Amino acid sequence: MQLEKNQKLLFIGDSVTDCEREKPEGEGLFQALGNGYVSIVNAFLQANYPELGIRVVNKGISGNKVRELKERWQEDVIDQSPDWLTIMIGINDVWRQFDTPFIPDHHVDMEEYKNTLNELVSEAKAVTGTIVLMTPYYIEANPNDQMRATMDKYGRAVKQIADKHHTIFIDTQAAFNKLLENLYPAAIAWDRVHPNETGHTVLAKAFLNEIGFDWKK
Amino acid sequence: MQLEKNQKLLFIGDSVTDCEREKPEGEGLFQALGNGYVSIVNAFLQANYPELGIRVVNKGISGNKVRELKERWQEDVIDQSPDWLTIMIGINDVWRQFDTPFIPDHHVDMEEYKNTLNELVSEAKAVTGTIVLMTPYYIEANPNDQMRATMDKYGRAVKQIADKHHTIFIDTQAAFNKLLENLYPAAIAWDRVHPNETGHTVLAKAFLNEIGFDWKK
Amino acid sequence: MQLEKNQKLLFIGDSVTDCEREKPEGEGLFQALGNGYVSIVNAFLQANYPELGIRVVNKGISGNKVRELKERWQEDVIDQSPDWLTIMIGINDVWRQFDTPFIPDHHVDMEEYKNTLNELVSEAKAVTGTIVLMTPYYIEANPNDQMRATMDKYGRAVKQIADKHHTIFIDTQAAFNKLLENLYPAAIAWDRVHPNETGHTVLAKAFLNEIGFDWKK
Amino acid sequence: MQLEKNQKLLFIGDSVTDCEREKPEGEGLFQALGNGYVSIVNAFLQANYPELGIRVVNKGISGNKVRELKERWQEDVIDQSPDWLTIMIGINDVWRQFDTPFIPDHHVDMEEYKNTLNELVSEAKAVTGTIVLMTPYYIEANPNDQMRATMDKYGRAVKQIADKHHTIFIDTQAAFNKLLENLYPAAIAWDRVHPNETGHTVLAKAFLNEIGFDWKK
Amino acid sequence: MQLEKNQKLLFIGDSVTDCEREKPEGEGLFQALGNGYVSIVNAFLQANYPELGIRVVNKGISGNKVRELKERWQEDVIDQSPDWLTIMIGINDVWRQFDTPFIPDHHVDMEEYKNTLNELVSEAKAVTGTIVLMTPYYIEANPNDQMRATMDKYGRAVKQIADKHHTIFIDTQAAFNKLLENLYPAAIAWDRVHPNETGHTVLAKAFLNEIGFDWKK
Amino acid sequence: MQLEKNQKLLFIGDSVTDCEREKPEGEGLFQALGNGYVSIVNAFLQANYPELGIRVVNKGISGNKVRELKERWQEDVIDQSPDWLTIMIGINDVWRQFDTPFIPDHHVDMEEYKNTLNELVSEAKAVTGTIVLMTPYYIEANPNDQMRATMDKYGRAVKQIADKHHTIFIDTQAAFNKLLENLYPAAIAWDRVHPNETGHTVLAKAFLNEIGFDWKK
Amino acid sequence: MQLEKNQKLLFIGDSVTDCEREKPEGEGLFQALGNGYVSIVNAFLQANYPELGIRVVNKGISGNKVRELKERWQEDVIDQSPDWLTIMIGINDVWRQFDTPFIPDHHVDMEEYKNTLNELVSEAKAVTGTIVLMTPYYIEANPNDQMRATMDKYGRAVKQIADKHHTIFIDTQAAFNKLLENLYPAAIAWDRVHPNETGHTVLAKAFLNEIGFDWKK
Amino acid sequence: MQLEKNQKLLFIGDSVTDCEREKPEGEGLFQALGNGYVSIVNAFLQANYPELGIRVVNKGISGNKVRELKERWQEDVIDQSPDWLTIMIGINDVWRQFDTPFIPDHHVDMEEYKNTLNELVSEAKAVTGTIVLMTPYYIEANPNDQMRATMDKYGRAVKQIADKHHTIFIDTQAAFNKLLENLYPAAIAWDRVHPNETGHTVLAKAFLNEIGFDWKK
Repeated sequence: MQLEKNQKLLFIGDSVTDCEREKPEGEGLFQALGNGYVSIVNAFLQANYPELGIRVVNKGISGNKVRELKERWQEDVIDQSPDWLTIMIGINDVWRQFDTPFIPDHHVDMEEYKNTLNELVSEAKAVTGTIVLMTPYYIEANPNDQMRATMDKYGRAVKQIADKHHTIFIDTQAAFNKLLENLYPAAIAWDRVHPNETGHTVLAKAFLNEIGFDWKK
Repeated sequence: MQLEKNQKLLFIGDSVTDCEREKPEGEGLFQALGNGYVSIVNAFLQANYPELGIRVVNKGISGNKVRELKERWQEDVIDQSPDWLTIMIGINDVWRQFDTPFIPDHHVDMEEYKNTLNELVSEAKAVTGTIVLMTPYYIEANPNDQMRATMDKYGRAVKQIADKHHTIFIDTQAAFNKLLENLYPAAIAWDRVHPNETGHTVLAKAFLNEIGFDWKK
Repeated sequence: MQLEKNQKLLFIGDSVTDCEREKPEGEGLFQALGNGYVSIVNAFLQANYPELGIRVVNKGISGNKVRELKERWQEDVIDQSPDWLTIMIGINDVWRQFDTPFIPDHHVDMEEYKNTLNELVSEAKAVTGTIVLMTPYYIEANPNDQMRATMDKYGRAVKQIADKHHTIFIDTQAAFNKLLENLYPAAIAWDRVHPNETGHTVLAKAFLNEIGFDWKK
Repeated sequence: MQLEKNQKLLFIGDSVTDCEREKPEGEGLFQALGNGYVSIVNAFLQANYPELGIRVVNKGISGNKVRELKERWQEDVIDQSPDWLTIMIGINDVWRQFDTPFIPDHHVDMEEYKNTLNELVSEAKAVTGTIVLMTPYYIEANPNDQMRATMDKYGRAVKQIADKHHTIFIDTQAAFNKLLENLYPAAIAWDRVHPNETGHTVLAKAFLNEIGFDWKK
Repeated sequence: MQLEKNQKLLFIGDSVTDCEREKPEGEGLFQALGNGYVSIVNAFLQANYPELGIRVVNKGISGNKVRELKERWQEDVIDQSPDWLTIMIGINDVWRQFDTPFIPDHHVDMEEYKNTLNELVSEAKAVTGTIVLMTPYYIEANPNDQMRATMDKYGRAVKQIADKHHTIFIDTQAAFNKLLENLYPAAIAWDRVHPNETGHTVLAKAFLNEIGFDWKK
Repeated sequence: MQLEKNQKLLFIGDSVTDCEREKPEGEGLFQALGNGYVSIVNAFLQANYPELGIRVVNKGISGNKVRELKERWQEDVIDQSPDWLTIMIGINDVWRQFDTPFIPDHHVDMEEYKNTLNELVSEAKAVTGTIVLMTPYYIEANPNDQMRATMDKYGRAVKQIADKHHTIFIDTQAAFNKLLENLYPAAIAWDRVHPNETGHTVLAKAFLNEIGFDWKK
Repeated sequence: MQLEKNQKLLFIGDSVTDCEREKPEGEGLFQALGNGYVSIVNAFLQANYPELGIRVVNKGISGNKVRELKERWQEDVIDQSPDWLTIMIGINDVWRQFDTPFIPDHHVDMEEYKNTLNELVSEAKAVTGTIVLMTPYYIEANPNDQMRATMDKYGRAVKQIADKHHTIFIDTQAAFNKLLENLYPAAIAWDRVHPNETGHTVLAKAFLNEIGFDWKK
Repeated sequence: MQLEKNQKLLFIGDSVTDCEREKPEGEGLFQALGNGYVSIVNAFLQANYPELGIRVVNKGISGNKVRELKERWQEDVIDQSPDWLTIMIGINDVWRQFDTPFIPDHHVDMEEYKNTLNELVSEAKAVTGTIVLMTPYYIEANPNDQMRATMDKYGRAVKQIADKHHTIFIDTQAAFNKLLENLYPAAIAWDRVHPNETGHTVLAKAFLNEIGFDWKK
């Protein structure tokens, strides 16, 4: 288990991270962490390692693309000085290219995505202990599906940035792909993006397994 | 144009037909026809052929499968004695097999689907002038996608019943397929089922073109 | 078909244009275009010409007169640099003279109307490709009705400005008049102004027919 | 002043009478009489003749036609045994012929209207002291307007029934016509049916003047 | 009838004047004048003298005392330059002395009341044609009741200011007293202050009779 | 202190007793006893005598007159078999005679009041240990006020019934009268009936003092 | 892992089980399973064993005691014929003795609790494959706390019934006790009963670990 | 009775004081004092000593710790210049250490608590007549409970500050302890902090008894 006593673990991202968390502060009493994977990760950390006293903070905001993360990076990440920083961004960067194809202002192309994410990670490294990069994903089994294929490209960009900065890397698409061997996408998310609790559990498991979480503790 | 003066045209189906129509009566003032393809069909009939005085009635109910149509067939179809009857059913019959695969009670298999639909058409023929059968559809371009492939099978069953009873037949899947050559499914429906106004327009056009509607009138 | 690939088509006007569109941005997902003629135009453009990728923007605001358009012209039209600009304004300019006759501050007389509209078109011409001027209308069959007669005068002023600036011109009153040969006004709009979907379809058809839209494509 | 001490005065009709009165009992504290002409009549009776102790009851129901009055005549009129009974019905009987022309079930033609109203008045005469028949109206100045002309015909039927049964008769159309010499219909009612407080005052004045109300008392 | 063609008549006061009028502008469509005596006055002016085109404006605000009128006098009265100005203030100035006797900050004593009202009238005279001063009132028949007696004193102060400035004066207490000969206060207002429609009619009648309104016109 | 261990104390009455208690059961968690004098009595019983374990039940219903109590007496009193029964009824029996004087059906005259109350007490005596009769009241200092004078008469009837059946008797009017020596009615209740917490405290004190409650315990 | 392919697993209990599940059917799309431990169990079963196709049903109802389970046992358990039945009941049976000590009707004493639970298990055994009995719990570390001590007694009764019927047994109190070594109760549940997600995770883990769930699969 | 004629008594604190009081001003009509002990104190002061005319003001704000009191001390206490000032703070200062133990920013340790409270009392002494310090409390009978023990320490700090500044001191924990001899905490407050009306009565009694209130007056 890599998390240490009294560390602060901050998650940032889009609606998959947000999940109706409280704002502006995404921590505290009464489902302040929302009802997605961040809340599941927190619940298992508290249940299995209460003695560590891990402080989990959720800074996801629905609809965000990497462009919006950049605008609030100073306030929501740097000023928070977390010990751990987990970033999952890119779904909307890709989705807008497919669901509103005629509004180019809302698209974030690969170059902007990669440059911006790289910049954000660089800045964060200076103030943060450990960084975890999670790929965006699309809950679609067919790798030749246009949007899935594009999402995979964005995921590979995340992998490159993770490699370059030696951060922890989590392939969420791979995690969902395994589930899709047995379940059709609609059983996890009608829109192939916003998962039900099963899908959020897949994300939480991917994170916890990566950091050496002991489930049987 | 096949519709004649003062005819009553009744649509029945699931949520794609329903679209927040008024209940129990799906006709009258103030968007009583809902905001889907039924309402578009009505608007164009009124705008282009006001002299015909076509009365459009919407009897769609969200979530319905062919099984629920059967339960309300006497009251919502036979007792209404429409001159024209349009049926589009089957999406939920298939969808439940994929989004809640472990609740078999909610599935309608091919045999039940085909037998029930056949029975409903037979009963309706006795009291109705013209019947239009519209296939269910799935807004997914890949014909090998599991749910799309299943939906295509249900669509072929509709075709067989239409042929057997000599009803008008509309292939809504084909209509969407044409659009999917240029648009990704998410641009029409995030969940690949409930279309935006573009998708409902595709359905309305398919219907109106089939009955000889003159757009330039 | 006069619209070309990737063009931006902006509609501005009053409540007939607005129709509960999203604000401040009148474009994007989930009925952001409202539920009036703008949305119908968009749906048919997407359904028949998806390959053109036309971007439709709705900037209508309920209650607006030409005076309010002037106040927001820079931000809502000039700064948007649309390829096509469609203006339909004047109903409230006239209506207030008849429904609140004793509050002169709320009236826009012919001189102000004409001068302001002329000014707005002049400014827009410098930055916009094509301008479409749609007349205001009143869904009343009797041309001697006081308000209808006044509205006709405002409509003729629109015609003059269109002629002067060589813009496209659409006579929406004429479009409604044709329908009124078969339908009483109350069947389209209880208040003779805010049309039901049939009336909005009349407006959409008038626009689409004017720009060479192919309905059978 | 024809009303006498402790008499009960019951109004029945459609939405113009209803005006959000309380249900099922249309009398008592807190705007139980609604906010239309019935409430104005009551307020002036109380203000000018408090010593008479007139009890006003409102039994209007929105959307009613003479057909619906018939269904509830026993319970809402006969069982109430009012000293005075005021009936204003017919607007919806006519309106539905014009705003939903293709739904004949919702229309009440002249024959049914006249027969039913005659029947209701006959039944009421047996149990009620004085009956007041008010015509339906349409706030439209042009007597050649189709709906206005039809409404006038229904109004004349009311006159015939009033004459036959020797009831008090009030020509509400005439009362509005006088106002329309100076005001355009939209200043009283956007939909030409549901009046603002000015229009309800016209109705209240017509009633009060007919029964010899002393305004200066 | 003292009101002349196209004059603007502005009412200012407390909750009895306010009556849920629209804000900030207390005029226009849809019950913008509220549902109290101001609206009744307007309705009768429109119904009996539509040819005069009187513009009625309501600037009442619930809870106001003369102290709050002073704060908004420039904006809500002087800047409006009405032809006629009607002021009814003082109920809360007195009421707070009786319902929250231990919060002296909320009380307006006679001296402040008289000086402030005098000052406001003086300022208004410079810009307004005719001023009408209406007394505050308390719907209580017993002149020895403490609060009634105090209200009477404030009413006499209004009389003195009216005399001094030669304004029109309306004794609303006297108008209610007459009604109280036949009705117990609770039949007009449970709290003896906020009247039902009968009470508002008393106020409207007092105003209209004072300015020579012809009820039979 | 007359209440004994584990006794059940039931209050019945009108809105003064009800005070938004939970329904149908007026006991249990979360302000189930409402926010009036019943809740105050309960709070002091629990706070000063927790060892007695008194169970308080609230069966007040807003708007009730003695007539409505009679209809629910079996279910809400007899079937509950309380050890103590406290009745406060009559305010609405009197009030309706004054606030809706022209609707005699809503009035309960002295004879009906007295007979019905006597009957209810007789029935209750057979199943209940101790009965407490509280008078109705009117928060008005002037004994010559019409409604106050009538309420006093109803209060005297309660006294007679209490004497006849040897029940405990509480003169709530006397309790309020004492307070009115220092406070104007509006400081306790704008409508002179529904008291603020000060007024409810007066009622609770009257009850508790009568049964020998020790405040200093 | 003891669950087998296509089995149906039904949970029944009180608010801890309910957690805003959908009613009447506690299964299907959109958080129909609520947001408590049942939903967590389902999410992990789907995420780790999608190939098993386990169908989870939630039949918890807030406020239930064993007495209410008995009333709905036929409909909600026997008629459902689940393969696995999990029962957690007793918290309210005990809690009411402590939070509303003076309302004995709401208490379920040990004898009734034990007899009823025994009876329910006996009935269920005839139609169900496997039964899991979970103890009630109280999130309080002090075993001498009165309510905790009582809850422990009820928990021991569950153990006895489990032993007698050879069902699976889960000691939820023991699971919470372990967590309470590091966390104060208020960090899990302000009221010591309704846990936050951490507490529900403790319950879900206790269940999953008992049935041989493989977390690393 | 130590309160004197026309004195102003201000209460400040957290949610136990707040209890949905009106904001920003916590005094006036309609439950402006909230529904907790402040309102009970006011009601008894008015009921027993109306001749004193005590003005009670509630400045409690939910969630406040001593840290937040400091921020608003000037505006909410000093600027109000009360004759009496009652302070009850500290529950949240302690509670956050136990319910969100991993968010140290939300904790107020003993040193900060004591220093800040001392500072606030010092400042207030300069402008206020009499100061009353009430301890924080925890409705838990076991003095060895961790949170209760901590609360007791904070309570002792209050005692020291009261002694040092010679203020009145009220031990609310002692008041609750007496009740806990007969009632389990859950009968007063499920969360052991926010009391029901019984608990608020305990607080009100503690205050009133301390200042020599005569209950039998």
